[in-house]
Amino acid sequence: MINVGIMGATGYAGEQLAWILNNHSKVNIKFLNSHNYADMNYDEIYKNYYGFLDEVCVSTEEAFNRLNLIHVLFIALPHGKSFEITKKALELGVKVIDLGADFRLDSEDVYKNWYGIKHEYSSALKDSVYGLCELNRECIKKTNILANPGCYPTASILALAPLLKHKLIDSKNIIIDAKSGVSGAGRAAKIDSLFAECNESIKAYGIGSHRHTPEIEQELSKVFGEDIMISFTPHLVPMNRGILATCYSNLIDNLSTEELMNIYREFYKDEYFVKIVNESPETRWVRGSNLCHIGIKVDERTNRVIVVSAIDNLVKGAAGQAVQNMNIMFDLKETTGLEFLSMGL
Amino acid sequence: MINVGIMGATGYAGEQLAWILNNHSKVNIKFLNSHNYADMNYDEIYKNYYGFLDEVCVSTEEAFNRLNLIHVLFIALPHGKSFEITKKALELGVKVIDLGADFRLDSEDVYKNWYGIKHEYSSALKDSVYGLCELNRECIKKTNILANPGCYPTASILALAPLLKHKLIDSKNIIIDAKSGVSGAGRAAKIDSLFAECNESIKAYGIGSHRHTPEIEQELSKVFGEDIMISFTPHLVPMNRGILATCYSNLIDNLSTEELMNIYREFYKDEYFVKIVNESPETRWVRGSNLCHIGIKVDERTNRVIVVSAIDNLVKGAAGQAVQNMNIMFDLKETTGLEFLSMGL
Amino acid sequence: MINVGIMGATGYAGEQLAWILNNHSKVNIKFLNSHNYADMNYDEIYKNYYGFLDEVCVSTEEAFNRLNLIHVLFIALPHGKSFEITKKALELGVKVIDLGADFRLDSEDVYKNWYGIKHEYSSALKDSVYGLCELNRECIKKTNILANPGCYPTASILALAPLLKHKLIDSKNIIIDAKSGVSGAGRAAKIDSLFAECNESIKAYGIGSHRHTPEIEQELSKVFGEDIMISFTPHLVPMNRGILATCYSNLIDNLSTEELMNIYREFYKDEYFVKIVNESPETRWVRGSNLCHIGIKVDERTNRVIVVSAIDNLVKGAAGQAVQNMNIMFDLKETTGLEFLSMGL
Amino acid sequence: MINVGIMGATGYAGEQLAWILNNHSKVNIKFLNSHNYADMNYDEIYKNYYGFLDEVCVSTEEAFNRLNLIHVLFIALPHGKSFEITKKALELGVKVIDLGADFRLDSEDVYKNWYGIKHEYSSALKDSVYGLCELNRECIKKTNILANPGCYPTASILALAPLLKHKLIDSKNIIIDAKSGVSGAGRAAKIDSLFAECNESIKAYGIGSHRHTPEIEQELSKVFGEDIMISFTPHLVPMNRGILATCYSNLIDNLSTEELMNIYREFYKDEYFVKIVNESPETRWVRGSNLCHIGIKVDERTNRVIVVSAIDNLVKGAAGQAVQNMNIMFDLKETTGLEFLSMGL
Repeated sequence: MINVGIMGATGYAGEQLAWILNNHSKVNIKFLNSHNYADMNYDEIYKNYYGFLDEVCVSTEEAFNRLNLIHVLFIALPHGKSFEITKKALELGVKVIDLGADFRLDSEDVYKNWYGIKHEYSSALKDSVYGLCELNRECIKKTNILANPGCYPTASILALAPLLKHKLIDSKNIIIDAKSGVSGAGRAAKIDSLFAECNESIKAYGIGSHRHTPEIEQELSKVFGEDIMISFTPHLVPMNRGILATCYSNLIDNLSTEELMNIYREFYKDEYFVKIVNESPETRWVRGSNLCHIGIKVDERTNRVIVVSAIDNLVKGAAGQAVQNMNIMFDLKETTGLEFLSMGL
Repeated sequence: MINVGIMGATGYAGEQLAWILNNHSKVNIKFLNSHNYADMNYDEIYKNYYGFLDEVCVSTEEAFNRLNLIHVLFIALPHGKSFEITKKALELGVKVIDLGADFRLDSEDVYKNWYGIKHEYSSALKDSVYGLCELNRECIKKTNILANPGCYPTASILALAPLLKHKLIDSKNIIIDAKSGVSGAGRAAKIDSLFAECNESIKAYGIGSHRHTPEIEQELSKVFGEDIMISFTPHLVPMNRGILATCYSNLIDNLSTEELMNIYREFYKDEYFVKIVNESPETRWVRGSNLCHIGIKVDERTNRVIVVSAIDNLVKGAAGQAVQNMNIMFDLKETTGLEFLSMGL
Repeated sequence: MINVGIMGATGYAGEQLAWILNNHSKVNIKFLNSHNYADMNYDEIYKNYYGFLDEVCVSTEEAFNRLNLIHVLFIALPHGKSFEITKKALELGVKVIDLGADFRLDSEDVYKNWYGIKHEYSSALKDSVYGLCELNRECIKKTNILANPGCYPTASILALAPLLKHKLIDSKNIIIDAKSGVSGAGRAAKIDSLFAECNESIKAYGIGSHRHTPEIEQELSKVFGEDIMISFTPHLVPMNRGILATCYSNLIDNLSTEELMNIYREFYKDEYFVKIVNESPETRWVRGSNLCHIGIKVDERTNRVIVVSAIDNLVKGAAGQAVQNMNIMFDLKETTGLEFLSMGL
Repeated sequence: MINVGIMGATGYAGEQLAWILNNHSKVNIKFLNSHNYADMNYDEIYKNYYGFLDEVCVSTEEAFNRLNLIHVLFIALPHGKSFEITKKALELGVKVIDLGADFRLDSEDVYKNWYGIKHEYSSALKDSVYGLCELNRECIKKTNILANPGCYPTASILALAPLLKHKLIDSKNIIIDAKSGVSGAGRAAKIDSLFAECNESIKAYGIGSHRHTPEIEQELSKVFGEDIMISFTPHLVPMNRGILATCYSNLIDNLSTEELMNIYREFYKDEYFVKIVNESPETRWVRGSNLCHIGIKVDERTNRVIVVSAIDNLVKGAAGQAVQNMNIMFDLKETTGLEFLSMGL
């Protein structure tokens, strides 16, 4: 059995992590940490666990004390909060899976530019592996420090990787128009996230400046073999869960929808969690699952290809992929504990 | 392994049933029937199964042919559509679990009064058992024909049974004000169920005339030992899933909230799926699970007790309870395949 | 022209008030006050006004200074915040319309019991008039201090008044099961009001203890002529606007639905804003309007009558009724500025 | 007074039209036509009018008979249904404002290609004017046959016209990613439009093949002076109303956000209904109004400009713009009956 601890277990990603790990046949949860809810019963905060999970949230101080009980630490904290505990964990031989952004960017300068703070554990950056399982599986197996991808990057990179790998598109004109449910804004008490402010409305935000941009560019550049710049625009949609990424690019040659679908099917042929679907993906079909649905359509009139990917932002976009990474890192069957499908509605 | 067939597998309850049975460790699905989608792939209709469930929907005629392959037939059809196939199944020694209303009412006259059609298999009524597992477990074990309770009755009866069993309330003044998500209206193409007609609105419907009324009265009367009449008012709420039943009654003696909670906890002490919660239940905490959360509050000023129960209408209110009944009927552990919790959001 | 000021103009009720008064042909808005947004442009907070309302929010201190510019002060502040400015306004001869709870209850003891704080301007209570326009029009005409009814009380009292006025029901068994959209919780940054906490769920809250209870009882007792106690249970529904109140009571005599509808039609025959509808009311039909729809149904089996009323909590339940009261107090046509209907969707 | 008739008054656009015209100070509604609800009271279908609009829907045959009573006919029917009545109306000297697609495309061949049916009144195409008021005002004044723009085209063209007029962008790389509320799918009883199928999900549809594409291209080409092809992808969002169009293009020169905002402000400086906003538009701020909010952002890293526009699909995207066109055609003040703002929530 793998012993785990979760930092930030009362945020939305943390809760989803607790849900998955609680069902995982090879895992013991050793502690659930919460800054705001230390010493409260977890099932008083998330009452879906009422009668099923008898755990008291531990403070951050206490979490440090318990690092010696675990094999792997999941961190679901805001960026800038992972440095110290990651260092301590690694020193103790505890593997780290960080769901936040602190170890995703290879360059501490890029980190500083986009996140506005100094990276305080930059020596770990060379060892950390970007945990997009379908692309980096071999490196994931060997690392002790895993940077779990952001939700938007997961959807975007899975959508575009086959096109770039095969150099089928003009790398100068890639546009990602992404849409997310409100859980992506986290469980912070902000007026902008109130029901009556989000419901019955849609907006773009962070146009040209969202922090997931350099992460997408870094990883797509690796796939492509050259530096790539993209335009990325996230939107907020009145639903709890889900990300849809609509990706636009110009085909270099004439390729039909069918030809491209075959290329995608081949690219992901061994992947359990990525499905190339015939019709346009809908987030509901992957909601509550670790799946990514991808649809491809060539617009012959403009010789542009539109790839649409759908994930659940809290599962494949956060906690599910984190557990998928854990499974790889600990040499378990990759799908262990992740075989649940969407209920459909 | 238990071999099963599902009639009406493309309705919402049918789909939930497929979802649960597909994960059930002791079940093989032998066929999925659909009147409207015969010969279509199931995963083209419900794309959450894309790549995971390779089944073609069979016509009703074909379902009849396959009855000899199965041990139990689940029927998720509109009322009035179960008579013939139930008869045939029972003759072949196949057990029947009907999620519809055709075998819930003991009296064919009551059936005719409320459903407006003649019961065409009334000889089966004396054998059919009302499958509210927590109350009728012993009878369920022995029956071949199980009438799975309606969604509103499940929530209502679980909420009120302890009060009536212990004769703590005035049986003349029981009011059930219930609220349901829109999936309760089914997957029929009706203007009243369109997104833009349901969203951002709430309404009562079927006031004093909803067909679940006689079912609630019949079962509560059995618990109480005398005939009971109640007022039942359902409401439509803009959400996909969930039922909340707010039940009002007048206490005969002075009892505190705490005393009543203890009575409820004792009443349901051996029940895995019924939880007496400290705060007011919310449907989100049971959504996607087979649980029923019950909250109790005495209004001392009026000596009235308000009991609120929350279920997922498609799980404990339909498919989950149907599987719970199957587990009982086939002497499996009652919770098999039903241990999933709500994801919380 | 009537010169007005609004305290608390950036809350949801305050904003609705600004919207209505901005369109009102006989009103000049002299100031919009906001504690949290003092010195900000109003149209930066509520961008629906972008380009149409060029006003800077004034601080509370500045609002005091401007009392001499106005004929009437609207107060849309939390309870306990209205005492001082009301006193000052009345001294200056400015009429006050308080949308909060501070002047609704006749007894300062009842106020203290339910609101948990001492009333600091109790000498005004004898002069304040409860502004449910349809019932108290004559008193409203003459008062300088108007307590605008709560949202739940407006829906509840309008639903039950005809039954109690005519003594048609057992006054001991009145139950009000009410449902509200989330804007009723106000524009405060609370986790409980976040989109992802409210969406796809329904719950009851404040069972037996909601502060609107004594207000409903006080006014219904006046209508009935004797003290009445009711049970009142509010629920939170995932929609922005709307209140539905489902009211249960036992008929003393046998009366048909049709007879009762005629009694209601007669009772409200001169009322522009109250409509007795044939089918069950839906909040969408009154959303964004000052109307109240009332439906009546006798459950002959139990001789109980169920009356359902629907209002928009921010209009007839707050700002719209406040303007209706202003119209009455200033001898304008009562419907001035309030003739807008719901857009339907 | 202008006498008007409405064909298709019970669809969502038709109902919005009835709402606006009912409040319009210079209009008499002479008939409301409905194919499906002929002879029913309008306020039984749309109960927001209960007690306020006493009209019986007339059949199509009867509508023909009443053409001689009116000055202008609004047609809110599906495409292909406007030919005959338009011809008849024009022959009688009745002006026509068609909210459908039948007279928007200049070429009957393009019409046939995209709509799949033969145009049966192609002789009228040379006279019909595309009624995007802000761009075609002078032609609108003089026409008898007005093609009211589609909802997506209205948002898209208003967003892109200034860039193309000033030739600031590469016309080969224009991408429009648009999002619409569900009312855009109309009031047809289709499973895809059911609450439980749309709620809590987002999807793209009609990728590369949506019928609004040629309309957008035709009008943008006129603005630009050369033929333009664009990629247009609509999405379905779980909300009733609203369209957000996120438009991407590559700047030819380096221009700052501020410079472009000034160009837009100048371009629309005389327009009442178009507002250039400082922050990213949200559909809620224009919901229920005839306004279009436009936000502009230059992504300096890629020298791309992202323009986001927000409208209410039923108002500026349909009925509101139709009335704006009527006002222009009848030489009324253009804003008459259209000055209502969004309520904000």
